[in-house]
Amino acid sequence: MLHTGRHFLQIPGPTNVPDRVLRAMDAPVIDHRSAEFAELGKEVLEGIRGVFKTAGAVVMYPASGTGAWEAALVNTLSPGDRVVLFETGHFSSLWRGVAEKFGIQVDYVPGNWRRGANAAELESRLAADRNHTIKAVLVVHNETSTGVTSRIPEVRRGIDAAHHPALLLVDTISSLASIDYRHDEWGVDVTIAGSQKGLMLPPGMSFNAISEKALRATESARLPRSYWDWQEMLKPNRSGFFPYTPPTNLLYGLREALKMMREEGLENIFRRHDRHAEATRAAVRAWGLGIVCEEPREYSSSLTAVFTPQGHDAD
Amino acid sequence: MLHTGRHFLQIPGPTNVPDRVLRAMDAPVIDHRSAEFAELGKEVLEGIRGVFKTAGAVVMYPASGTGAWEAALVNTLSPGDRVVLFETGHFSSLWRGVAEKFGIQVDYVPGNWRRGANAAELESRLAADRNHTIKAVLVVHNETSTGVTSRIPEVRRGIDAAHHPALLLVDTISSLASIDYRHDEWGVDVTIAGSQKGLMLPPGMSFNAISEKALRATESARLPRSYWDWQEMLKPNRSGFFPYTPPTNLLYGLREALKMMREEGLENIFRRHDRHAEATRAAVRAWGLGIVCEEPREYSSSLTAVFTPQGHDAD
Amino acid sequence: MLHTGRHFLQIPGPTNVPDRVLRAMDAPVIDHRSAEFAELGKEVLEGIRGVFKTAGAVVMYPASGTGAWEAALVNTLSPGDRVVLFETGHFSSLWRGVAEKFGIQVDYVPGNWRRGANAAELESRLAADRNHTIKAVLVVHNETSTGVTSRIPEVRRGIDAAHHPALLLVDTISSLASIDYRHDEWGVDVTIAGSQKGLMLPPGMSFNAISEKALRATESARLPRSYWDWQEMLKPNRSGFFPYTPPTNLLYGLREALKMMREEGLENIFRRHDRHAEATRAAVRAWGLGIVCEEPREYSSSLTAVFTPQGHDAD
Amino acid sequence: MLHTGRHFLQIPGPTNVPDRVLRAMDAPVIDHRSAEFAELGKEVLEGIRGVFKTAGAVVMYPASGTGAWEAALVNTLSPGDRVVLFETGHFSSLWRGVAEKFGIQVDYVPGNWRRGANAAELESRLAADRNHTIKAVLVVHNETSTGVTSRIPEVRRGIDAAHHPALLLVDTISSLASIDYRHDEWGVDVTIAGSQKGLMLPPGMSFNAISEKALRATESARLPRSYWDWQEMLKPNRSGFFPYTPPTNLLYGLREALKMMREEGLENIFRRHDRHAEATRAAVRAWGLGIVCEEPREYSSSLTAVFTPQGHDAD
Repeated sequence: MLHTGRHFLQIPGPTNVPDRVLRAMDAPVIDHRSAEFAELGKEVLEGIRGVFKTAGAVVMYPASGTGAWEAALVNTLSPGDRVVLFETGHFSSLWRGVAEKFGIQVDYVPGNWRRGANAAELESRLAADRNHTIKAVLVVHNETSTGVTSRIPEVRRGIDAAHHPALLLVDTISSLASIDYRHDEWGVDVTIAGSQKGLMLPPGMSFNAISEKALRATESARLPRSYWDWQEMLKPNRSGFFPYTPPTNLLYGLREALKMMREEGLENIFRRHDRHAEATRAAVRAWGLGIVCEEPREYSSSLTAVFTPQGHDAD
Repeated sequence: MLHTGRHFLQIPGPTNVPDRVLRAMDAPVIDHRSAEFAELGKEVLEGIRGVFKTAGAVVMYPASGTGAWEAALVNTLSPGDRVVLFETGHFSSLWRGVAEKFGIQVDYVPGNWRRGANAAELESRLAADRNHTIKAVLVVHNETSTGVTSRIPEVRRGIDAAHHPALLLVDTISSLASIDYRHDEWGVDVTIAGSQKGLMLPPGMSFNAISEKALRATESARLPRSYWDWQEMLKPNRSGFFPYTPPTNLLYGLREALKMMREEGLENIFRRHDRHAEATRAAVRAWGLGIVCEEPREYSSSLTAVFTPQGHDAD
Repeated sequence: MLHTGRHFLQIPGPTNVPDRVLRAMDAPVIDHRSAEFAELGKEVLEGIRGVFKTAGAVVMYPASGTGAWEAALVNTLSPGDRVVLFETGHFSSLWRGVAEKFGIQVDYVPGNWRRGANAAELESRLAADRNHTIKAVLVVHNETSTGVTSRIPEVRRGIDAAHHPALLLVDTISSLASIDYRHDEWGVDVTIAGSQKGLMLPPGMSFNAISEKALRATESARLPRSYWDWQEMLKPNRSGFFPYTPPTNLLYGLREALKMMREEGLENIFRRHDRHAEATRAAVRAWGLGIVCEEPREYSSSLTAVFTPQGHDAD
Repeated sequence: MLHTGRHFLQIPGPTNVPDRVLRAMDAPVIDHRSAEFAELGKEVLEGIRGVFKTAGAVVMYPASGTGAWEAALVNTLSPGDRVVLFETGHFSSLWRGVAEKFGIQVDYVPGNWRRGANAAELESRLAADRNHTIKAVLVVHNETSTGVTSRIPEVRRGIDAAHHPALLLVDTISSLASIDYRHDEWGVDVTIAGSQKGLMLPPGMSFNAISEKALRATESARLPRSYWDWQEMLKPNRSGFFPYTPPTNLLYGLREALKMMREEGLENIFRRHDRHAEATRAAVRAWGLGIVCEEPREYSSSLTAVFTPQGHDAD
C-alpha cells in the first residue's frame, strides 16, 4: 500500500496519536521494580484520577477496552446476578454479550439507537425491584455506534429516586477526556475507559475508576478473577508498582498525554470538542443529511453519526 | 533521576528493545478494520507461528504474560479440574495461584528450585491416575527466578509413556525466541509467551500457541471466558483481524522483530544466547560464585541465577 | 504555543517530512570511517544520481541550499568573471547577491517575475559575446517566489544555437524530485539542490550535480575554496566517504527518501505534483483570483503563486 | 551488516547522541519565518552563549565543523594575512590547509604532538613582530588526534605580555561542553565548535562565538564571504531568525541538549568527564601502555590517546 501523504484516522477510534505521545513512548523500557519506575507509576496513577474526576482509585490494565468491561463485572458481581443494561447501540449489545458469558442475567432495556439511557424507565424498573435483585445498572456513556451521549447525572437521579442500592457501571471508552465526565460528582461506581481515544494513546491499555462502594462489593463478588482482580492491583499501586509486568511504554505515553491535558486544560478540551462537533453537525445539515441522535441534549461531542442517503453507504 | 548515559536493563525481563523495534512502533495508528491492517495482521499472525514452530494457531492478546497464563486455563479447563504443576521456582508458584483462583485443583509437585520438571515423577503420577482425573500438566519451560530450563521433550515422553490424555501447557515467557523451543514437535498443547523478552518488544502483548487437541478441549471447558476466548479470536484472525481493538503499535513492533529474527535466523539467535550464557557461567565460576542450576543439561541460555556470597545481596 | 492537532507546513518549503524519513533519521550515529558507513555513503551517492538523472558526480554538503549556490560558483569561476543571470524573482536576486560578493560580474537580465528565463534573449546575448567573456549562464529552474518554471531545454538550445562555451548552472531547489528534471539530457553543467523540498528531508543538506565540463572548469577556477571544494569531496566519495564529518542522520533520511521515491517511481511523483498543481489552479480560478505565472507552459507543479485581492494580504 | 545489539560509537567523535535528543529532532519541521520558530531561535541562540560562557554573539551554521574553521578565517582576515598556528596534531594541520587555500600565510609552529600550544614561544614570536604583521593566533584547544588540551589562559597571557593586537582563534570542536572553557574570561576572539561532540547532537551544525574585537575585524577583512558572513547572520538572529533556511530539526535537538546541560549543570558535566578521563588513564597505566600526552596539566578529559605496543595497531 503506497502512502504518499500522512495517514489520517477518520474512524470513531482509535484516534490520531499526537507525535509528542508517540515520541514519549519511543524510549527504552526501564526496570518495573525500580525507584525510577515507582515515580512514573505514582505520577500516572495520580494524574489519571484527575481525568476521571475522582478522589478514589483508578486501576490500569494492559488490555483492550473490552477487558475493562470484563474487569468491572468480575470484580463486583457473582454468577446469576441480575443487571439492567440499556440498549443504546452496538456497544451496549457487545457488553451484554460479555456479561452473559459470565452467567450474569441481563435485563436489556430496548432502545431505538437514537436516544440515550432512559432515566425515568430506569427509576420505575428499580422501584419495582423491591427485593433488590438488581445488582448493577450498566450504561454506555457515549455510544460510538450512534453518536448519542447518555445523561449520566439523570441516570444517577433515577437510581437515587428509587432508593435502590444497585451499582452504577459506566462505559466512557469514547467519551473520557473528550466530553465532560465526573466519576465522583455523578456517583458512578465503576467507570470503564480505554487508552485509544480521548487519552490520545495507542490501544493497549484500559481503566476502571472505582468507588468505595464498588470496592466493598468485591468482598462478596464470587465471579472468578485473577488478571482483572482489583485488590491484587491496588496493593502494589500504592507504591507506584503493578502486580505483573506493566506496559511501560504506554505509561510513558500516558505521562505525556496527561501533561498535554494539563497544558490545554480539561475544560478547554471539552469546549474544543463541543465546537468541532457543532461544526460537524452544521456541515451535515448543510449537506441535507440526517443526524442519528434525535435529542439535542444528547448530541455527542466526540463523534457524529449520520444517515447516508438511499443508495449510498458510508464509504 | 539524572541519566547521563544510556539506560541498560540488567534484569531478567523485560529486555532491551532494539531501536528498530521502537522506531517501527513510533508510527500513526491505522484503522484496525482496513485492508492495510489485514495485511499487517496476517503477516504477524503467520510469522509468529514460525517462532513457536507450529503449523497451528497462535492467538495474541493485548495483555501482560499473566493474562496468557489465565487464557490457557480458562479455554481448556472446568471448575474443579485437577492439574499437575511442577514447583520450579517463583513463577510456577504464581501460576499455581492463578489456577487456584479459578477453582482448579493443583497437584503441586515439590522441587528444590535448582532442577527442572521431573519427567519420571510425572510419568509415575500419571500412570497412577487411571481414571484420568488429571486434565493438564503445567510446566514453566525456563524459570526466570532460577535459570533452570526444563526439558520439555522428556516431559512429553513421560506423558506418552503413561498413555495419559492430559494436556501439556508450557510457559515459555522467558525462553521463546531465545532458547530452542518446538511447539509441534514436542507435542505441546498450549504454549504461553509474552512480548517483552525474546520477542524484543515492550511489555503489553502475550500469546497462546494452541494444538488441535487444546482447541477441541474448549468445547467442554466450562470456565467462563470472554476476553480470553480463543474461538472469538480465531474467527476474525483468519482474515487478519481481531475481535476487539488490537494493540496496533505493538503489532508494528512485532512485524519488525519478526523481520530481525528472519535476518539473523532463529538457530543463530539460539546459538548466540548459548554462547553468551556459557560466557556468563565462565565468569561466575571465575569469581568463585555458585550457579543455582545444578544440572548442566538444564542450564538456561537466557538467564543465569547466581548464589550471592554470605553477607551480600544481589545489589 | 499550544498545538492541539498536527502541525502542517503550508509554506513553499521546507515541506512536510514523511514519518518514515523522520524515523529513519532517529537512529544512533555510526562511525563515519567504518565499512558500514561506506555502504550507506555509496548507496546514497549512487541513488541521488538517479534523481538528478545524471551518470556523473553529485556532491552533498552539510549546508543549506544557499551553500550549494556558493559551491557552484567558487568551483567553476574566477574573480571578475562575467555571468548571465535571469531575473525570475526573489531567489534569482539572492543568487545574484552571492555571486557579487565573490567579485563576479553579473549581467542580470530583467524580467517581470511572471515569466521564466527568455531563451531567445539569451541566444542573442551570447551570440553578441564573440570573445566568450561570459563564463556561465545562471537560471533558477523553479522560482519559489512566483511559481514559474523556466524551460531548461530551451535555455540549453539558446546556448547551443549561439555556439557559446558558457557553463549552464541551474538552481532546482524547489523543483528537484517534484518536477521533471534531467541534468544530463538537458546539458546542465551544475545543478543546485537542497534537501528540504522534493527530497522530503529536513533542511541541512544541499547538492551539486556536476558535468564533466564543470569538473574541468575547476582546474582554472581561481575563487578560493575549501569547504565547498568538489575535488576534495570527490576523492573520498569514490569509496563512500566524505572529507569531513558528514551529516550521518540526514544520510539515513536520504536513504529512506530514495527508497520511497523508488517505490512510487519518479515519473509517478511528477504526475502527482502535476495533478495537485492543476487542482490548485482550478481552485484559484474558481475563487476568481489571478495566477502570477502568465505562461501556461511555465506553470510550476510544486507551487502556485496567487495575486491577493486589493485590501488583502496572504495571511 | 547484522547488529544484534546496540551500536556504540567508540571513536573520538561524533559521540553517542542521547535518545532524548534524537527524539526531540524526530518532529515535523515548522515554518522558519513563524513566531513559533522565533521562540525556538531565540531560545537556542541565547542558551548556547552560556555554553561558550560569552555575553557576546554566537552564530550557528548548517555545516560541519570544517565550515566553522573557514567562517572564522573569512570573516576576520584578508588575502595574504599572516597568522600563527601551533602544530598540535592532525587537526591543526588540517586547519592550516584551510587557511592556505584562502591565501593566508601560516607561521606553523612545530610541535611533537605530545604537548599543547607553547605560550612562551608565542610570546617571543609576537614580541618580535613589531609591525604587527601577524593578524591572528590559531590554537586547537583539544587535539582530537593526541588527547592534549592546550592551556588557553596561558596562550592569552602570552599575547597580552607581548602587547600584540592579534586576534585569538580557538578550535573547541572536541572540548566544548566537555572540558572547562570560557570564551569571554579567557579573551578569545573567535571560538569554533561543532554539534557532534560535547553538544550531544548529530553532525551537521557548527558555531562561531565572536568577540567585539573580532566583529570589528569584519569591517576590514577582505576575504570573500557569503554563506559564512557573520553580519548577514547576526541581523536576523536578533529576532530569532536566520538569513537562509536553518536546520530546524538540529535546532530542536540543540534545545533539548541545552535543557539536559542545564539539568546536570555544566560544572558537573566537566567533573564527570574529568573523572572518566582519569579512570581511563588509570586503566591505560594498569595495562602498561603509554599515554601520548606528556604533560599532566594538558591531559584531555574528553579523549585519551594511547601508544599501541610494537606489532599492534589500534584495532
